[in-house]
Amino acid sequence: MRTLYVIGIGAGDPDQVTVQAIKALRQVDVFFVIGKGAEKRELVEVRTAILTGYADRPYRIVEIPDPPRERAPDDYRSTVQDWHERRSLLLEEAFAAHDGVGAILVWGDPALYDSTLRMVERVLARGTLDFDYTVIPGVTSVHALAARHRTVLHRIGEPVHITTGRRLREEGLGPGSTVVMLDADCTFTTVPGDTFIWWGAYLGMPDETLFAGRVGEIGGEIAHRRAELRERKGWIMDIYLLRPAE
Amino acid sequence: MRTLYVIGIGAGDPDQVTVQAIKALRQVDVFFVIGKGAEKRELVEVRTAILTGYADRPYRIVEIPDPPRERAPDDYRSTVQDWHERRSLLLEEAFAAHDGVGAILVWGDPALYDSTLRMVERVLARGTLDFDYTVIPGVTSVHALAARHRTVLHRIGEPVHITTGRRLREEGLGPGSTVVMLDADCTFTTVPGDTFIWWGAYLGMPDETLFAGRVGEIGGEIAHRRAELRERKGWIMDIYLLRPAE
Repeated sequence: MRTLYVIGIGAGDPDQVTVQAIKALRQVDVFFVIGKGAEKRELVEVRTAILTGYADRPYRIVEIPDPPRERAPDDYRSTVQDWHERRSLLLEEAFAAHDGVGAILVWGDPALYDSTLRMVERVLARGTLDFDYTVIPGVTSVHALAARHRTVLHRIGEPVHITTGRRLREEGLGPGSTVVMLDADCTFTTVPGDTFIWWGAYLGMPDETLFAGRVGEIGGEIAHRRAELRERKGWIMDIYLLRPAE
Repeated sequence: MRTLYVIGIGAGDPDQVTVQAIKALRQVDVFFVIGKGAEKRELVEVRTAILTGYADRPYRIVEIPDPPRERAPDDYRSTVQDWHERRSLLLEEAFAAHDGVGAILVWGDPALYDSTLRMVERVLARGTLDFDYTVIPGVTSVHALAARHRTVLHRIGEPVHITTGRRLREEGLGPGSTVVMLDADCTFTTVPGDTFIWWGAYLGMPDETLFAGRVGEIGGEIAHRRAELRERKGWIMDIYLLRPAE
C-alpha cells in the first residue's frame, strides 16, 4: 500500500457524503474497517449504502478486530493511548498485508473525537511502513444538529466550545455556547435550569429525534426519552448544544 | 415562494459540496445571492462552478445588494443586529417578488459565523411572508484546515474552542485547543511563543497556503506571508488552530 485515504463520510445520512469523498473512494482498492463487531447494524448499513452507491470498481473490505478497552479507567489519557497503540499495531499488520490504495471511512469528520489519524501517525512513526495519506473532511454531527434545529451554534460574535460529557461534568459550561459529545450520562441535567438545550439523536437516520427548550423544562423528558430509545434500539448516538440564558 | 433552502456548500473547494446539497439545489428555481458586489471573483467562480456543475434544470439568480455596515463600531452587537435587520428587509422584498423554490448558498456551514439563518428568522418573525425552510449542513473551514494539516483538532479527550480574532485578543486562549476565525489582525502573534499554530488560507483553492509550527518561530513569517498574499490577491480568507505547549 502506497496511499491511504482517511475519509469523513458525514454524521449518519448517506447523502451527507461530499463529492470529494466520492472521488476518493472511487480510487480505493481496500477499505479497512476497524472494530466492525462492535458497530451497530444501522451504521454498517449506512456505510454499505455509501460504498455500494458510489464505488464504481471492485474493492475489498478488510475487517480489523478492535482490542478490548477499559471504559472507565483511572488514568483516561494513558489508557486511551495504550489502546491506540494496540489498534495501530493491528492496523499496520493489515496495511502491510494489502497492496493498492487503502482507505478508512470515518463517521462525521476525522478531526473531531476520532482516533483514526492518531493511529495512522503511530504506524508512520514506527517507520516500518511508508505511505502517503490524505484526509478528506466531512460534515460532523455538530453541524447536522444545528441544521436540523435550523440554528446558529452561537450568539452574534460569541464563541462555541466543543467538549465531552466527562468535561462538562468536571468543568461546567464554557464561555458562549457549548456543544457536548460523547455523553452517556445526560450531563445536561447538571447545568442551570434556564440554560437552553438543542438535543438530537440518530441525526440524519430514520429514528432521528430532536428536542429544544430550557433544561429545567425538558431535561427530564430528554433523559427519559434517551433511555427509552437506547433500550428499544440497543444503542444511541446523541449530541447537544447548550446556551446559558442571557 | 413556499420553500427555502439554506445550503452549506463547503469551504472553497467545489468538490466539498455534499450529495444532500446537490439534491437540494436541483429543486431550486431562484438562488438569492446577497452582497455579490463585495464578493471576491474567485469565490463567485467557485459558486458558479457548483451551480453549473450540478443544477440540472433552469434557475434564476437574484442579487440582493448588501446594506453598508460599520466595520469597527462601538457597540458591535447592536450594530450587527441593525445591519441584519436591514439585510432581512431586502431579503423579504426579494422573496416576495419571486415564486417557486428558493435557496441561499452559504460558504462552509450556515451554523458557524454566518448571518443567513438570523436574517431568515427575522423575515419569518415579521409574519408578512410564510414559507418552510430547510438547512443543509456543510463542511466548514475548521474541518478543511484540520484535514489539510492531517491533524485532530484537540488532544485526547480535550475540548475545542472556536472563537474570533476579536475575542482571542480580549480573552486569550480557551481551555484545550482554540480555532480562530474572522481575524484580520494576526492576533496569534499575541499568544505565548511556544503555542503551536496550524494556519491555512484559501483552503481548497489554487492559492491554498499552509503553515504549522510554534508561534514564536513562524508567527512573524505567517504575518508577513499573509500581508503579501492579501496585497497580491486583494483579499484573504484564513483560519488557524492554536494549542498551548504541554
